Amino acid sequence: MNRGFPGLLVVLLLIGLLSSAAYCAECLTCHKEKTPFAVLQWEKSAHGKSGVGCEACHGTDHTLIDRGEARVDITVCGHCHGKALSEHQASRHGMALHSGWGCTRNLAERKSDGCRFCHEKGSEIPVSQVQCARFLKQSSEMAEIGCTSCHAVENSCASCHTGHGTELAIVRNPVICAKCHMGPDHPQWEMWQTSLHGTLFSASGRENGPDCQSCHMPSGSHNVSRGITCSSAGKPYDPVKQEGERQEMLRICSRCHAPSFARKELQRDDAVGEQSRKLVVEAEKIVADLAEHSLLDPMPDKRPPHPLNGSNLVLDSQMLYEDTSHIERLLFKMKKYDFAKTVKGAYHQNPAYAHWYGNAELKMDLVDIKSEAGRLKERRQAGGAACDSRPGNPLEENLRALKRKLERKELTPAEFEQQKQLLLK
Amino acid sequence: MNRGFPGLLVVLLLIGLLSSAAYCAECLTCHKEKTPFAVLQWEKSAHGKSGVGCEACHGTDHTLIDRGEARVDITVCGHCHGKALSEHQASRHGMALHSGWGCTRNLAERKSDGCRFCHEKGSEIPVSQVQCARFLKQSSEMAEIGCTSCHAVENSCASCHTGHGTELAIVRNPVICAKCHMGPDHPQWEMWQTSLHGTLFSASGRENGPDCQSCHMPSGSHNVSRGITCSSAGKPYDPVKQEGERQEMLRICSRCHAPSFARKELQRDDAVGEQSRKLVVEAEKIVADLAEHSLLDPMPDKRPPHPLNGSNLVLDSQMLYEDTSHIERLLFKMKKYDFAKTVKGAYHQNPAYAHWYGNAELKMDLVDIKSEAGRLKERRQAGGAACDSRPGNPLEENLRALKRKLERKELTPAEFEQQKQLLLK
Amino acid sequence: MNRGFPGLLVVLLLIGLLSSAAYCAECLTCHKEKTPFAVLQWEKSAHGKSGVGCEACHGTDHTLIDRGEARVDITVCGHCHGKALSEHQASRHGMALHSGWGCTRNLAERKSDGCRFCHEKGSEIPVSQVQCARFLKQSSEMAEIGCTSCHAVENSCASCHTGHGTELAIVRNPVICAKCHMGPDHPQWEMWQTSLHGTLFSASGRENGPDCQSCHMPSGSHNVSRGITCSSAGKPYDPVKQEGERQEMLRICSRCHAPSFARKELQRDDAVGEQSRKLVVEAEKIVADLAEHSLLDPMPDKRPPHPLNGSNLVLDSQMLYEDTSHIERLLFKMKKYDFAKTVKGAYHQNPAYAHWYGNAELKMDLVDIKSEAGRLKERRQAGGAACDSRPGNPLEENLRALKRKLERKELTPAEFEQQKQLLLK
Repeated sequence: MNRGFPGLLVVLLLIGLLSSAAYCAECLTCHKEKTPFAVLQWEKSAHGKSGVGCEACHGTDHTLIDRGEARVDITVCGHCHGKALSEHQASRHGMALHSGWGCTRNLAERKSDGCRFCHEKGSEIPVSQVQCARFLKQSSEMAEIGCTSCHAVENSCASCHTGHGTELAIVRNPVICAKCHMGPDHPQWEMWQTSLHGTLFSASGRENGPDCQSCHMPSGSHNVSRGITCSSAGKPYDPVKQEGERQEMLRICSRCHAPSFARKELQRDDAVGEQSRKLVVEAEKIVADLAEHSLLDPMPDKRPPHPLNGSNLVLDSQMLYEDTSHIERLLFKMKKYDFAKTVKGAYHQNPAYAHWYGNAELKMDLVDIKSEAGRLKERRQAGGAACDSRPGNPLEENLRALKRKLERKELTPAEFEQQKQLLLK
Repeated sequence: MNRGFPGLLVVLLLIGLLSSAAYCAECLTCHKEKTPFAVLQWEKSAHGKSGVGCEACHGTDHTLIDRGEARVDITVCGHCHGKALSEHQASRHGMALHSGWGCTRNLAERKSDGCRFCHEKGSEIPVSQVQCARFLKQSSEMAEIGCTSCHAVENSCASCHTGHGTELAIVRNPVICAKCHMGPDHPQWEMWQTSLHGTLFSASGRENGPDCQSCHMPSGSHNVSRGITCSSAGKPYDPVKQEGERQEMLRICSRCHAPSFARKELQRDDAVGEQSRKLVVEAEKIVADLAEHSLLDPMPDKRPPHPLNGSNLVLDSQMLYEDTSHIERLLFKMKKYDFAKTVKGAYHQNPAYAHWYGNAELKMDLVDIKSEAGRLKERRQAGGAACDSRPGNPLEENLRALKRKLERKELTPAEFEQQKQLLLK
Repeated sequence: MNRGFPGLLVVLLLIGLLSSAAYCAECLTCHKEKTPFAVLQWEKSAHGKSGVGCEACHGTDHTLIDRGEARVDITVCGHCHGKALSEHQASRHGMALHSGWGCTRNLAERKSDGCRFCHEKGSEIPVSQVQCARFLKQSSEMAEIGCTSCHAVENSCASCHTGHGTELAIVRNPVICAKCHMGPDHPQWEMWQTSLHGTLFSASGRENGPDCQSCHMPSGSHNVSRGITCSSAGKPYDPVKQEGERQEMLRICSRCHAPSFARKELQRDDAVGEQSRKLVVEAEKIVADLAEHSLLDPMPDKRPPHPLNGSNLVLDSQMLYEDTSHIERLLFKMKKYDFAKTVKGAYHQNPAYAHWYGNAELKMDLVDIKSEAGRLKERRQAGGAACDSRPGNPLEENLRALKRKLERKELTPAEFEQQKQLLLK
């Protein structure tokens, strides 16, 4: 919309500004009293100073506004800020809700057009995992504050720019990233602050110590995902895409570091990621094996159904932290907290996050998972009366285990059929 | 004391100042060497500059001072700062020790005058819970640093204002609140810092991002509890008081936000609180039920006595984290850490605290509590030899369970008698 | 080296500077492009401005540089900065790697000259514990980021001063300490920030609130260990050394505080340390006792060998957090995280660290350790089939227990022999 016909655009804009001034006066009569801070922010903003009035973003239908149906989403801002919008949409911020497709699958206004929400065009590798089961388990109040208030970044520029301000000092300050990029699942804010980059930033400014924006929004780009080599669920991209992104990141590192140093550092972090993933997979197999022998306590079919997968065992990125067994919630911590801290800690050059908060926790949780697995197996042998762990029908159990191996793609359909026939003999 | 007779007051003050100057010179002779920093702080302070000398606060009896019996407590400061004192005393800061009545019940100098320490005048709803069992379990050294160093705020203005300084820049800086309002039990400092309010404060100052003082000490009031709708133990106030406080907070929010928006936000947070409380109650019932069947390991009568309740099960705000059973310490974490983080995280608009540090932990701990409860029940059936969990006398056990229901007010006295007679038949 | 012959030194330095300028021009031709930030840092540095060129530190053999064999370690810097070097080497920073002697025992270039790496001259009390088993368990990538990146401070001034800068504002800023002194094992940065010292620093600067350097590097000394009264493994020094260090710290405290106040505070913290140590010892005994009865799950000889102690039980500072039993990893948390937080929290005057993050966790972990110990003992009695805990050969077991008591020095060799003969009868 902001390309081509610049003459026409200027004319339209001028007409807009003129009528804007008139509308605004009307709005301000009430809003100076009703929402004084919003008015003050707007007055001090580039919008306020250049005459971009209330109705330019909110429209003129007050009934619609009152009903909450005149949302100022990214498309509204994008009318004028087209480049920022397209960069944003190409980034993970631009798919924050449907990265979480499930998060929005129940919203009537969202149109589905197939695969593109989860896959890159022409690729089978998922751009993002469907991560909504946890959202669907929450009360609407917890979902609003705990999920949507961050993931709304997909649709709302105000997530970072604030509602009525345009102060660049705010969005150029790394602290503005903190309100989402912190906490047990992805403490990028905390790990950057105490990394060499972050401490140098605190001690002598951005010139000596790069901040979030320096590396993730070079030249002010709104594509915050450039140079990142794995999906938001932590799965590595395919080699071609991966190498392209790596080149991108090396270009960024090379503004300060020798490229050979930077590549070596990033390769070291890749290795840490790979090693950590193996620990998670080892734990996943232990839990899957217990499930195949009906040893989880409680088994999935004896607990409230999983919002997406019913009574099936769910260990992927749809895994829940609630209504589950003790050993599964240990695995949840490993996957979602420990793994993320190790890998992100390494890429952000934070020794304490990579090693103590990450690697040590991964390995301690693995100790606990093995201990709990041992206990559950022993319990079966003791024939615990109050639990689900009495030996079931051996044939049924073995068939179920076989089917799960097929589902996890550890068997081809042909191998599955062959082994099934052997069992049924 | 600072009201009325202003002429007389001025005269007295002048006499005081004149004699003060004389005393001070004497004090400083030694103290410039013995406590140089204190003298320096005082010299730069409003007190030092206007001639309020050492003896104005410390008195003139050096023997008393040496014995530590000339404490400069709130009443000393209150001689001149009466308004601040009365606001302070009306707030939770003003009952920080006896909010914790038990904390000070053993102090000889404290006079008890009945119910007012725990109840509002004419109300049965407790203003505060007696929270001292944990204090009473500590060594005097740990009690001093771990309990009293924060809770002394009740009696000491120096808790925030520092000992000899009067610099307003210090007490107007939100960081001064951090030294108490942080940590696993109430990380208000951490959750504010990474909330939108806190990040805006960091990026562009108090005008854009409100800090602790903006909302909790409006117009410099020393009543830090205005606008809060539940007791310090997290119990909701009665509806009338609650609505009064809510109105107060809405007045504060409305300086920036539309009141309708603010009310909706706060109602959402109320709902989060209510939902979280239910999870805690669910866990409490599991533990109480285990105790009624003598399944805790160890049972309260097999461990060091609770400082206030002896060998009774204690799950209320007097609950201990030590000398207890594994399942009770899981419940302790739920009640004291997870619940607080969820609710305070919601009211402070911090998604990661409300959801990950709060809600997710609440639910994961509930998973672990259920798992441990299952194990303890099963153990009884297996007839574990090394434990207390062998089936006891069924009649005795049922009578005990009944009595506990009465104590928890789940039965009226009449219902209790009726059910007891049924058992004894 | 920088003492005596100042005339000769000046001449040598001048010759150096002249040749330096020539070399530098050659280096910069390429390096302005290849490592622009390093060149920029150097240009702005005191070195750059006074003509101390690339080759002064890196030498002139580019082949050596390319092979990574021309490391700019402390000895290179020490040619000019001799006082700083000797202070550094006398401090814990100066033994960061061999405080971890094991960390470097495999490095060919390190010469061992016996006891001095672990003991003070003529003393049996270890200056530091060998803490390398955890290092030896890591992949080389994790060891590099998780261990060496901090412990390299022993050999590299750049750890704090950065590679090419000399800006004093950076090393005088406490944040530069944060990148190592943070995290679950020693959160000095976090606990200082929210202590009264740290909050006063934030609110009104170093003059009111001392920072790391104020107390640990008085007058700019590079001996960061002055005034500390226990080893890096938390073991108290012998009384004579302890009192000497205490006097040193009291001199530092007394710049602001009355010495009597400071001594009382530090004695309180000593007591907290002593009490906390007892809790750890109580837990260690529980675990050692289980091991003596072959009740650990798994037992040390059924898991991957300890890098230094093979299949022996290791509970000292060489303890691992991986490939261990559930109860041992609980003990690991107690020793390495909880104990450190309690004691360091007390010495840094942080109530929340001393009490909640420290003391409460110590005691909750002790609850869990006792609970797990009870379970393991009961399991033996139930004769769990899937585990190592079936009663073994009683004689063998008792002999093993006896031998362990000897190893832990709970028995003299004579007592051991006597008791052994009794068993063998």
